[in-house]
This record gives sequence, structure tokens and C-alpha cells, in this order.
Amino acid sequence: MKPIDLHPDRLFPAEPATRALARALYDTVRDLPIVSPHGHTDPQWYADDAPFPDASALLIVPDHYVFRMLYSQGIPLEQVGIPRRDGGPVERDARKIWRTFAAHYHLFRGTPTRMWLDHAFRAEFGMEERLTAESADRYFDRINAMLATPAFRPRALFERFNIEVIATTESPLDPLAHHARIRASGWKGRVVTAYRPDPVVDPEFDGFRANVAKLGEITGENTATWTGYLAAHRNRRAYFKSMGATSTDHGHPTALTCDLDAAACQKLLDRALAGTIAAEEAEQFRGQMLTEMATMSRDDGLVMQIHPGSFRNHNALLFADFGRDKGADIPTRTDYVRALRPLLAKHGNARDLTVILFTLDETSYARELAPLAGHYPILKLGPPWWFHDSPEGMLRFREQATETAGFYNTVGFNDDTRAFLSIPARHDVARRIDCRFLATLVREHRLGEDEAFDLAPQLAYHLAKQAYKL
Amino acid sequence: MKPIDLHPDRLFPAEPATRALARALYDTVRDLPIVSPHGHTDPQWYADDAPFPDASALLIVPDHYVFRMLYSQGIPLEQVGIPRRDGGPVERDARKIWRTFAAHYHLFRGTPTRMWLDHAFRAEFGMEERLTAESADRYFDRINAMLATPAFRPRALFERFNIEVIATTESPLDPLAHHARIRASGWKGRVVTAYRPDPVVDPEFDGFRANVAKLGEITGENTATWTGYLAAHRNRRAYFKSMGATSTDHGHPTALTCDLDAAACQKLLDRALAGTIAAEEAEQFRGQMLTEMATMSRDDGLVMQIHPGSFRNHNALLFADFGRDKGADIPTRTDYVRALRPLLAKHGNARDLTVILFTLDETSYARELAPLAGHYPILKLGPPWWFHDSPEGMLRFREQATETAGFYNTVGFNDDTRAFLSIPARHDVARRIDCRFLATLVREHRLGEDEAFDLAPQLAYHLAKQAYKL
Amino acid sequence: MKPIDLHPDRLFPAEPATRALARALYDTVRDLPIVSPHGHTDPQWYADDAPFPDASALLIVPDHYVFRMLYSQGIPLEQVGIPRRDGGPVERDARKIWRTFAAHYHLFRGTPTRMWLDHAFRAEFGMEERLTAESADRYFDRINAMLATPAFRPRALFERFNIEVIATTESPLDPLAHHARIRASGWKGRVVTAYRPDPVVDPEFDGFRANVAKLGEITGENTATWTGYLAAHRNRRAYFKSMGATSTDHGHPTALTCDLDAAACQKLLDRALAGTIAAEEAEQFRGQMLTEMATMSRDDGLVMQIHPGSFRNHNALLFADFGRDKGADIPTRTDYVRALRPLLAKHGNARDLTVILFTLDETSYARELAPLAGHYPILKLGPPWWFHDSPEGMLRFREQATETAGFYNTVGFNDDTRAFLSIPARHDVARRIDCRFLATLVREHRLGEDEAFDLAPQLAYHLAKQAYKL
Repeated sequence: MKPIDLHPDRLFPAEPATRALARALYDTVRDLPIVSPHGHTDPQWYADDAPFPDASALLIVPDHYVFRMLYSQGIPLEQVGIPRRDGGPVERDARKIWRTFAAHYHLFRGTPTRMWLDHAFRAEFGMEERLTAESADRYFDRINAMLATPAFRPRALFERFNIEVIATTESPLDPLAHHARIRASGWKGRVVTAYRPDPVVDPEFDGFRANVAKLGEITGENTATWTGYLAAHRNRRAYFKSMGATSTDHGHPTALTCDLDAAACQKLLDRALAGTIAAEEAEQFRGQMLTEMATMSRDDGLVMQIHPGSFRNHNALLFADFGRDKGADIPTRTDYVRALRPLLAKHGNARDLTVILFTLDETSYARELAPLAGHYPILKLGPPWWFHDSPEGMLRFREQATETAGFYNTVGFNDDTRAFLSIPARHDVARRIDCRFLATLVREHRLGEDEAFDLAPQLAYHLAKQAYKL
Repeated sequence: MKPIDLHPDRLFPAEPATRALARALYDTVRDLPIVSPHGHTDPQWYADDAPFPDASALLIVPDHYVFRMLYSQGIPLEQVGIPRRDGGPVERDARKIWRTFAAHYHLFRGTPTRMWLDHAFRAEFGMEERLTAESADRYFDRINAMLATPAFRPRALFERFNIEVIATTESPLDPLAHHARIRASGWKGRVVTAYRPDPVVDPEFDGFRANVAKLGEITGENTATWTGYLAAHRNRRAYFKSMGATSTDHGHPTALTCDLDAAACQKLLDRALAGTIAAEEAEQFRGQMLTEMATMSRDDGLVMQIHPGSFRNHNALLFADFGRDKGADIPTRTDYVRALRPLLAKHGNARDLTVILFTLDETSYARELAPLAGHYPILKLGPPWWFHDSPEGMLRFREQATETAGFYNTVGFNDDTRAFLSIPARHDVARRIDCRFLATLVREHRLGEDEAFDLAPQLAYHLAKQAYKL
Repeated sequence: MKPIDLHPDRLFPAEPATRALARALYDTVRDLPIVSPHGHTDPQWYADDAPFPDASALLIVPDHYVFRMLYSQGIPLEQVGIPRRDGGPVERDARKIWRTFAAHYHLFRGTPTRMWLDHAFRAEFGMEERLTAESADRYFDRINAMLATPAFRPRALFERFNIEVIATTESPLDPLAHHARIRASGWKGRVVTAYRPDPVVDPEFDGFRANVAKLGEITGENTATWTGYLAAHRNRRAYFKSMGATSTDHGHPTALTCDLDAAACQKLLDRALAGTIAAEEAEQFRGQMLTEMATMSRDDGLVMQIHPGSFRNHNALLFADFGRDKGADIPTRTDYVRALRPLLAKHGNARDLTVILFTLDETSYARELAPLAGHYPILKLGPPWWFHDSPEGMLRFREQATETAGFYNTVGFNDDTRAFLSIPARHDVARRIDCRFLATLVREHRLGEDEAFDLAPQLAYHLAKQAYKL
């Protein structure tokens, strides 16, 4: 039997003195509560508290990190049960799906997905042998059996994971009914929403026109006028805030911001609603809305997150067959220096605004993001995101951003995941890598040991709470 | 005497536990045969099996890695015997050339060239002292003496290097006469060609018009028509395949691909042949041909390699005096996400095509290439190329690509060299660095030790054989 | 009491064998004189040799590395005594300024500023406790007391810092009166100027028109004509050279160079002086002047430095209130391959010219700068600059540039600072990191130990002297 190696010193450097200190630092943060200020778990889980159906439905079908790798090696998405838009046949036998996955588990060697899954297998499901084609059925049966128990219901997991607060992410059109039910239920778990207006802010979003009309209906505003459209946002932001939101989130193709006059904005809105807007104008509209959102944040206090630089749905055929979020979003080169300038010219020196910047383009860490965050009072750096939410990615972030931005212009960790079971593992990886980084600084006499012990809980817990006002 | 330090633990990290494991892994792959799926050795060597003339002609004059560094420090190319296009005087005394090189050998400290040469000096020629101005003559005499022996003829070296198969790279216009002679000779060494159509695919290539005409003559096709031009390619690909080719190779300034209709293609071809094609159209023509080559590969099974991003012949004066490949090709920023989309839209989801991507822009590893290869079934990542074929370059590749693409979307090592004597050293460096990377993962408990022992021969041998169908 | 950790092994890797060798290498270069070939110290200091007023005026108010970080965390510049352009009220109590700084000293954890300051506190001022809010007054009093002593006058510090030669940077309009007084004083300290013509070369520089007119007055040339304008530069370069200058320096937004004919140049000059020049034309004018400066350097022998890629005064509001150099310059993506080609086509193969390239875009190290410097005889690579003048930045530079450019196409270290007290610390960091890099190469058997001992003083001292002709 090949064991799962969930070694207590994993991710620490091999050099013994540094490792010992990394472990000592980690020991002080390992059991801190999880603050998850940005992510994509489904609020219905916490509202219904229904058991997860089976191992495949929980761990494979919803996780594009998993099936993108399988797909890259020639396994059709149908074979792992990803539903087709046309309702065409896909594998429905959860055990077969699991076997396909298990037989290809070696593909994940060296990836964070492997690390997160092994963590969940060992720590949550008590598996000691590694997942292989041979052990697939034992895994499947055991996981399914445990999922059927009360201890594996969403709320029980939430509590066992020691989650102090988790943010989900919803469209302005979402009634937040699940959040309302959670609050009404009397359960003490803290689940808050976040305002993600892409569907009504991005003229190129599927159904934009109908979305904006619906926004008008919900709020009683005339969203065909620029004034009414902005008022509708203010209205929904207030509602989201009443449901616990402390932040907004913006997933744009670029970081472009604009600062146009109202007449120009009305014109762009007209063309967007008429469906005649050009690509460059749609970009301007999104850019203008970032600046508008910043203006509103200075009023209502919501922290603003910008997640730019993903080329969404790069694989047109796959998009046609299976839809969004199927592992075909590809990062692109992203400029911040020129792109953010209009927003920064208007709000950059404010004391009543926090804008957290993310990137999929690591070249911007040292060149653009750390210098920007190390100057502008409103800017903070979000943690390594998506493809870079990984041990090497986290190390590069600290190595490239810290010397210019320091630690206090960063905001701790985001898991940013829809894979509920991976949350403890992801926070654990971040805590380990941060402690490793701190230990290295101390052992090279670049930081006092007492300072490292002071910083470790900041990075693991406090900075996220403060930056996100949680 | 300063010794050559060909230490058995070279390139392994200093930390003892990691070093010991790296060495143990390396011991299992050190003696595996060399699979060299892409390179630029001269097939005439293997056909003629004539002795190499002397140390300078073998190790300096053909190696632009060597003389570019000398040139950068003010040594005229004439002084090391690089032939001028105008036939003007250059140094012809091989000993003097060697002395010039030896006197400047310190310039190569810290470079892979130094490592490759030291490896060859020690392992092939048995030199124990380091090359210096003082030892120059002893080197020159000994190397020359050994080159005159049968053991240093190309075929003997090929066999002693334990090369299982090597690919050369030829133009479609090449009759492959040397390859035919190798096959006819009864020698068991496996030397295959690869189809590199740049001279007939790039309208900006020297002599493009004549080249396309010659392609027509060779194949009996009317290469002035788009249909005939494509048919001629199919014809030559089939011939190359009959001479062992399993791959094509494309060295374009960018990774742009296009998918135009036949009328537009004919128009571009017309203008290219008329010599009136604009730079942007030439770019489109090359981009279109990448997509056409992919289409043909799905028919004939040749694996496709794309090597984009080199600004060729950057130094116009040097090009005028000495011609191509004189160390003046400079990498440029290279986009893949938008550039490859037309080809990927057409063929990206195929199961019968492999496209291997290379880059001279390391920023694309984590941002673009790993995400693309970690999704599209046709894409694989080639090893670090050219300036990045180096210990640090290889480490950066593994550290930046593995977490998103894994190991199985990579294809082992290419030496890509015209420097025959460097081949064992280059593969040795790659094997050492890969074992170092694996050992680090194990020691940090990110990979099982048994998995590392399973992966090491994959990276050193099997993945290249599989990906290139060798 | 928390001590300042100025450990003798700081910045060396934790692995004992590598650390021991790094230390041994460092011991051979620690006490070498400082050659500071490029920087921004004020020549008036050396001319007047007056005491520095107080701790805040010396260490906070002039150092944008310090107050940019404070500003990023919400501390108004007024609160640390940065003068407003409008003469509006700012804090003038040096002790209060110092206390504000001390209370936020934790923000600098992990930054080079922290390392430089701790070095100065411990090594120059003898402080053993760390700077905190609690120790602020003890620091302030002790530093002030010491600054009032003869041992802390500029010339005494210069000598105690073991500075062999330092270059300042002046505009062509500067009469170099301080340099003349230094020379006339009989003091043996060597302070030379450098020719930084941005104010008369950049049409977008504040007061360009008046500057060019003044250049005409000073030189007796008609600077409204292209010929006269160039002659005026030649005139001033000769004067700067007579005041010890061995170099010029050019801080442009990009690395663009041009090679236009005289008529086109006159036209650009006309438009620049008329104030009607478009942004793109201003860019051409600057680019043309780089090529002209290279031409002049071939005549007068001044070494040319290009510092491109900073987006100056990104924060318009801050610029309006406080002016230039207030921590709001942000790096941008910078191309060298296409940008430098016109200059290189004209001068790239010269044997009588040195152009030293700097970058704020680290992605260019391996991709563009090392390949360019590893080929063109005129090009050398400057050390990591500004945001990258840091331990991690220096390591990345060596790791990314050495394999292609070697060591001998680099030029040692520049402190590039206006923070006089940081000069010993900055050179010390560079020496430590270079020794660390060399030790790592040796311990991984990539370089002979004797070669590392040969290279260490080259990197610490000799290469800078040679490249800058000092």
C-alpha cells in the first residue's frame, strides 16, 4: 500500500534549522479559525444542510481544476459526468466516474489539486492508502458512507473546519434567499454574500440586456437611464450589505478603468442595451463601472475586489457544448499602471476606500502591483489567485511583492473556491508557505524571530479580517 | 593545475538530504539511452562518418553560443574563423583560433556553455586540467589527436553517446540524400529527419519565391495555386515521413495562427509570390500555414512543434557580413492566448493531433502555456529552449509549469543543438535538474518518493518517445 | 529590549556549507573601497561639509522609499514634513516626525529600507535596540547628538564609508559650482558629476523650452537649430568631463531609440520648442537624442547609461501638491529588442562605446537584456535598479542574466541613492548577495572555488571601475 504523505512538515524547506522554525511558526497559526473573505461555495449548502450525494458529485463534477487536467489528457468531459447543454448523454454512474478519475490520479502529481485532495482524503475521510485504480472502489464506498452521516453535512463540516466566516459571491439579481434562510435558521455559522455585478455591468455577458431590465424591476429604478442604473446598483448594494456583504467583486477581462462624463456614460449604456455596443466601448463601460463602484464604496463602505485578466471561455467548442467555468479560462498579460490610473486619479488618495487587486499575470507583482500598493492608500494586494494559488505561486508572490509593498499592504489568504472540501487544505497550504517564507527571512537574518511570530497570525488571520472588515 | 570539476553531485542542491535523494534518482536515469527528438546536427556527419577536422572546427566555429559571448566582449568574428559572406580574410589557423578562445574561457563562467564544454573535455577527451591560455596548446593537440582516431568518428560517438534515435531538421527542398545514404549504409544508428518548412512558408525568408517554385518542381504541383501549394506540402511531408520523420517544426516570429478562407489564402499567396506582400500579410500567411500544417498533421500523424518568438538577425551589419545564425537572434515578448486561438478553435479538441509549444518568453510558462496545455488535449509543453536550456531555466520551467500542467503535459528534453559533442552533457544537465526538482518535492512532502522514482525515467526518456512517436 | 539583528551572516543561505563559503568570499570583499558610479547624493554636502540638521531631515524627509510606505498606509505626507508646493502647513517638529516614523517602523519588515536603516542605526549610530515607538526618543536624541559631531560631517562620513569615488548626477544647466568648490578645497575625496540631460532632451519635461533657451545662453550656441542644439550638448559634455564626468545618464519613459535625418530632427525640435509637439513626436525626439548621445559618446568617451521604464508622477494629485520624486513613480513593461534597434544598427558593433542598460521590468533580464548584452559589444547590464535594488531582486538578476550574459557583461553595483547614510548598507547587501550567488554555484559544482574567489572582487569593485572608466 502506498500511503498518503500528509507529513507534519510538508511544504517546509528541507534545511533543518529553517524547517524547525517554520514548524514552530506554523504551530501558532495552525488552529486559528478560517476567515474566508472571498469564494464561490453555494449558500444553498448551508441553507439546506442536506448531505452531499456522493464522492463524484462532491469532488469531481463541480471542480474544473480536476476535470480540466483529465480533459487535457484526452478524457472527454462526458466521461466524468459533466452535463452537456444540449442534454446529450453523459456518464451518470458515479462509481464509473470515480474510477476514471482514480485511474488518472497520477496526472495530478506536483499540482495543488493533488495536495488539496490528499489532505481531504486523509484528514476528512481517514484514508491512509493513496488513491489509485486499485483503491478506487474502497475510496468511493468509504467517502459515500461518510457523506451520508450527519458529521458530513455542510454545517457540520463548516464547524469542524473552524470557519469563522465565509463569503459567497452573488449576482445583483440574486434574491439572496439562501442567505435569508441561513439567517432565519438560527444556525450560528456566519455566511455572508458579496456583490458581484458582472452580469449587469459587462455588456458582453450572456443576457446582459435582460439582466439590466431585471435589475430595474427588482429595484424599481429605470435602468435604461444612467442615473437610474446607478441608483439600482446603490439599492442592491444596500440590500447585499444588509445580508452581511462587506465587499464587492469584479471579474473583468482587463483592469481598465475610466472616468467619463454622464452624457458619455448614457450613450454607452444606450448602445449596450441596444446590443450595438462595440468591443472597445464595452471595455469602456466596464472600466467606467469600476470607477462608479469605487465611488459607491466610499459611500457604503464595501471593500472592492478587482480580479482582472482572465480570457473567459477560450475554447468556443467546449463553451457551446458545456457552458462557462469548464476549465477553459486562460490568463492573459495584464497592465495595471495605465489601466487603473483614471480610478486612482479620482479615488487613489482616499482614506475611506479599500481596493484589493488580484492578478493572473505574475510579472505584475514586482513591476506594477507592489509599487502601486506601496504608494496609494486605497490599494492592497490580494493573495495569489487561481492558477497561482499553489505553493510555488505563493512563494513567488511573497518573494516578489514583499520588498516593495511589505506585509501590511497584503490581505491574508482567499480560498476563492467552490470546492468546499478543499477549504481547510487551501488555508493550510497558505499558512505553511507564509511560515516558510517568514522562517527563511529569520534564518537569513532579514527579520527578527519575534517579528516573525508577530506576523504569522497577521498573515493567517488578522489581515484578512481587517482588510475585508469581517 | 586547476582541475575540471565534473563532480558526481553537480547541479544537485547543497542540502544533504535533498542531494542524496537527487543522486539516487539520477542513478536510475543516468544510463538511459538518449532520445533526441529535435535538433540540428548535420546528417552528413552520420552519412560520411568522416573524422571531424580539428578542435576549433568542431567546437568553436559552428557554435554561436560560443562566439556570441566572445563577440560581446569585443573579439571580432574574423578572429575566430567565422567565414565572411564576401570571402574576406578571416583567421584560418585553427590553433590561433583555439588560443583566442582559451584565453577568454573565463567569460563563460556561470553559463551552460562552460558546463557543456567542460563535460565534453573531461568525459570525451579525458582532460583533467581546466582550459586556460596556458593549457590551450595541450588541449588543442590532444583533442586533435583523438579526433583523428576511429573512436571519434560521428557514428562511433553516436553509439558511445548511447543515442537511441536523433532527429535532424530539414527544409522541404532538401532531397534528404544524407538520410538515404545512412539508411542504405546498413548502419544501425537511427537518424530521422523533421519537416521544417520555414523557407517555403515564410514570405520574408530569403529566396521565398524561388523556394516555392522549387517546391513545385520537386513535387510536380503548381505551387502558384493555393491548392497546388498545399498539395506540394502534403507530398513532401509524405516523403519526409518515409525517411523517418515523426514531426514538423515551425520557427515563426510570433505564435499567430489564422483560419482564412481559400480565396483569401490564394490572394496572400499571390502577393507573397509577387513580392508585394506587406509585413502584416506575411504574418497572416505564416499564421495560416500553422493551421494548415495542423490539418495535415491530423491526416499524416506528424507531431507539430512551434518555436515562436525569436527576432532573427537583429544585428543588420553582422547579418550582412556573416549571414544567419551568428548569435544575433534575440527573444521577444510572445503571446499565445490570442495568437493560437484560430488554430485551437479548429483543432484544439482533437484526439489525433499533438502540438508541442516552445517559448523564449518565460513569463508565458505560468500565465499562458501551462493553463493552455492543462486544458487543450492537443497541446503539450516543450522543454526550456535555447537561452533557457540551462540549469536555472529548467528549474524555472518546472517550478512555473508543473503546478498547472503537471508532468504529463510535458515532453521530456530536446537538446536542439548543432553542437554534437554537447549532446551527452545537455541531456545530463536536464536529467540532473529534473531529479533535483523531484527530490525537492519529495523532501518537502509534496510527492511520494516512489512517485519520484516513477517519474524520473518518464522525464528522462519515455515522455519524449511517446510525445514524438519515436 | 528587541535587538537590531546585524548578524555577520545576514543574507547568506541557511545551508551550512554554502553559508560558510559565502562568508569566506564576503570576507575578501567586505573592506574593499566603495566605487559608486551612479547616484543622486547632493554635491553641496561635500562642498559645504556642513553638519546634517537632524535625524528626520537626514533619514525621512528626503527618502521617498520611506515616506511612500507610510503614505500607502494612510499617513499624510504633511505629517512627516514633506513640503507642499503651495507652502501650506506641514509638520515642522522633527521629533514629532521621527515619532510618527518610529511608530510605523513595523511596516518596513521584509523591505530593503528596513535593512539599510538598521545597518545605519547599528553601524553608524551604535544603536543596539530596535527602533519602536518606545525607543523613538532615544534614537532621535542620540542621532542628533552624533550628527552634531565632526565625525558625522559629510566628508568624514565619505572617508569612513571608504568611498573611493562617487558620481553625482546633474542637469546640463547646472553650473557645477559645488563640484568646482570641492576641487578647489583641496579635499582628497573624489566626487565626479554625470551628464543627465533629461531637462533639455525631453520635450515633456517641466520647463523644457526655457531649459533649451538657457542651454543656448550657457554655451553660446543657437539651440533653436538642430546643429546648434547638438553643439550645445557637445559643449556641456566637455565641461562635465572636465569636472570629472565619465558617464551620461538618461531617464526616459521607454527605451525607444530613433535614427532620423537632420531635417526631421529640426522639425521635431521646432515643434518641441513651439510647445506643439505631440506625445508620439516627443517620444521620437527623446529616442533620437539617445542615438545622438551615443554618437557623441564615441567622440568624447563618456559611458552611456539608459534608465527607462518609469511612469513618472503617476499620482497627479500628489504631484500637484508635492511635486516630483514623492514615491509615485511606477514601473511599466519595457521593450528593448525593437526599441534599441535603431541605436544598435548605428553603433551596436562599435569598440569605442559602452552603453549600460537598466530596467524596472525584470521579465526583460532573461528574455531581452542578457541576450542583447551577450551579443552586442557596446552593451553591458546595469545592476538591479530602484525597486529591484534588494536581496530578492539581486538574486533574480544573477539567476536570470548570468547564464546568457555571463558575469563580464555586468558592471558591478550602483547605489543610485540620495540617501547618503544608506550607501554602505546598499553596497554591503550587493556584496553579500553576490557572494551568496557565487557560493551556491560552487557548492553545486557549477563554478570552481578559485573562480568564485576571483569573481567576488570583480563584482564588488573592479567591474564598476572598468565599465565606468573610474
